[in-house]
Amino acid sequence: MGRALALAALAQGQTSPNPLVGCVVLDASGELVGEGFHRRAGEAHAEVMALGRAGTRARGGRLYVTLEPCCHHGRTPPCTDAVIAAGISTVVVALRDPDPRVAGGGIRLLQAAGLEVISGVCAAEAAQQNQAFMHRLAHGRPWGVLKWAMSLDGRTALPNGASQWISSPPARHWVHQLRSGVDAVIIGGGTVRADDPLLTSRGRSSPEPLRVVISRALDLPRQAQLWDQSLAPTLVAHAKAADPKACSWLDALGIKRLPLDPCEPRELMAQLAAQGCNRVLWECGPELAAAAIDQGCIQELAAVVAPALMGGRAARTPLGDLGHTAMEQVIRLPATSLQQLGSDWLIQGVLPGPPAVEA
Amino acid sequence: MGRALALAALAQGQTSPNPLVGCVVLDASGELVGEGFHRRAGEAHAEVMALGRAGTRARGGRLYVTLEPCCHHGRTPPCTDAVIAAGISTVVVALRDPDPRVAGGGIRLLQAAGLEVISGVCAAEAAQQNQAFMHRLAHGRPWGVLKWAMSLDGRTALPNGASQWISSPPARHWVHQLRSGVDAVIIGGGTVRADDPLLTSRGRSSPEPLRVVISRALDLPRQAQLWDQSLAPTLVAHAKAADPKACSWLDALGIKRLPLDPCEPRELMAQLAAQGCNRVLWECGPELAAAAIDQGCIQELAAVVAPALMGGRAARTPLGDLGHTAMEQVIRLPATSLQQLGSDWLIQGVLPGPPAVEA
Repeated sequence: MGRALALAALAQGQTSPNPLVGCVVLDASGELVGEGFHRRAGEAHAEVMALGRAGTRARGGRLYVTLEPCCHHGRTPPCTDAVIAAGISTVVVALRDPDPRVAGGGIRLLQAAGLEVISGVCAAEAAQQNQAFMHRLAHGRPWGVLKWAMSLDGRTALPNGASQWISSPPARHWVHQLRSGVDAVIIGGGTVRADDPLLTSRGRSSPEPLRVVISRALDLPRQAQLWDQSLAPTLVAHAKAADPKACSWLDALGIKRLPLDPCEPRELMAQLAAQGCNRVLWECGPELAAAAIDQGCIQELAAVVAPALMGGRAARTPLGDLGHTAMEQVIRLPATSLQQLGSDWLIQGVLPGPPAVEA
Repeated sequence: MGRALALAALAQGQTSPNPLVGCVVLDASGELVGEGFHRRAGEAHAEVMALGRAGTRARGGRLYVTLEPCCHHGRTPPCTDAVIAAGISTVVVALRDPDPRVAGGGIRLLQAAGLEVISGVCAAEAAQQNQAFMHRLAHGRPWGVLKWAMSLDGRTALPNGASQWISSPPARHWVHQLRSGVDAVIIGGGTVRADDPLLTSRGRSSPEPLRVVISRALDLPRQAQLWDQSLAPTLVAHAKAADPKACSWLDALGIKRLPLDPCEPRELMAQLAAQGCNRVLWECGPELAAAAIDQGCIQELAAVVAPALMGGRAARTPLGDLGHTAMEQVIRLPATSLQQLGSDWLIQGVLPGPPAVEA
């Protein structure tokens, strides 16, 4: 199962809306005869790939898979059919698929066909690996990661707005890597105006994640790197009452718009989940970040801390108001990890929140 | 010499205005026959302690000392006399004493008496150990350490001023330990008003460091833990033009006052150096911290980062304005180290600055 989990991880950030899945097939004598993983939506499932490699040697063998095989016709035929047809005698499953179209049905179907099924092997590791997928199915929202880069005195810009660059090149490369593992990168209009960012993974993932701007009033600059969609697609979310002239101008540029009512992080996340986004990255300014936290859209935090002192009473900070009036209300991350990125420190942690799978 | 340095370190924070010094004596056959370190000003010097332990076995032996032996009458007689009288044949010195009353004179005196002197052994380690003492002699100011505790989003208080506690108990214990290694702890009037701190090492050092409040106008609360000097002494620095009523009130409490002109961090540091402070700790608010940095009073930074999100546009941050208008002006710490303190992270580093010893 360890090998199957490692195979699954190879497609990190590439499979949405599908989960990561890895599979290993052993023949009747216990020899590894096939392996596979799900590369991207629409392509072969891990079980089908592994069974294809194993061929007739799968007969009487054992199949390890990180997620319950599907039993429904999606873009590909049900995997349960392939497993049964290959003559597998035992299926070892890490995690039940929470997808309502599966949800234990795959396991029951295999058992009904006379196969032995062992489930729950490395379940915690498998759940961790598909954290984002599980979160989307449980909550109808993608798993949200909030990232910022700040100085040691907690500034994300100088009082005059200058901010390039706070962090070191290795930290910026790490951010490109982070983007390659998400389905969308979200900023507000203020970040477009202040930084004119590109928001790509610099070619580390193909296709590039969707670049999303949330701008209630569509008060956006006419020139911005995001309006050039040759590298990556851009989506602009806005209030239904936004300036019609700005709407037509975006339409003329061929930029997809998403009217939201209300134009809030929560509604955006629901729409992105519906479009199949499992994991999204927020790289926004302090007010939008605070609203996203407040509305339960942030599950994970990545703070790059540069060993720099910027100062400035009026300088930008990572987070706007969270409405706390007592220290007991402060959001405490139960555990954080730390990593050095060049001269910078990266502190990462998961926010406290509702359990990943609700009853 | 490693042993001598380790011995010296035992008195960390206790020897001011004197440096840390450790000493080891080997007899003619190379056996360790005596060791010592300088415990505090007015008590025996390391050489005298080590030679006393060695007794007649020092004759023809070798003495290792982390700092050049003194050759002047201070509160104790010159160590060079003791070394010569003990019949030591070779003296190994890590670092020359920058004190103008010594400055190579000790070494020359030993050589003139026919002893072999080897100097510069582990000089970098010895200079690092006496960083604060060396800094005071070179610049006429104590070595300044600035400490703050902030949330992951760079806040040192909530918008309403609440701040107890941002950091975890292990981090607060570490701060007590930090205080035990300094000669004075400095805050501004705002911190007295907001936090009413005790500022002691909680008994980790005896005597406790001097508690210093710098308050231009003496706008201070009449009730404060700092006004009770049963645990530690308190000094209040203020502008010469401060409210005479507040002056008399402090005088009546038996609290020492220090009128400064101008009432600025730089002047305070010069006065503290003149009083023999080698190392001081700034635990002040953002405006005083920024002024202290601006005036070259901060050499080292210790930032406790708690895994908490506090938020708040108006919330207090670690540093006030440093006047930077371009990212090139930002103060970059050449290297930082990191340590975990309970659930918190401690980032420490030395600020760029003039060389420790000026020409």
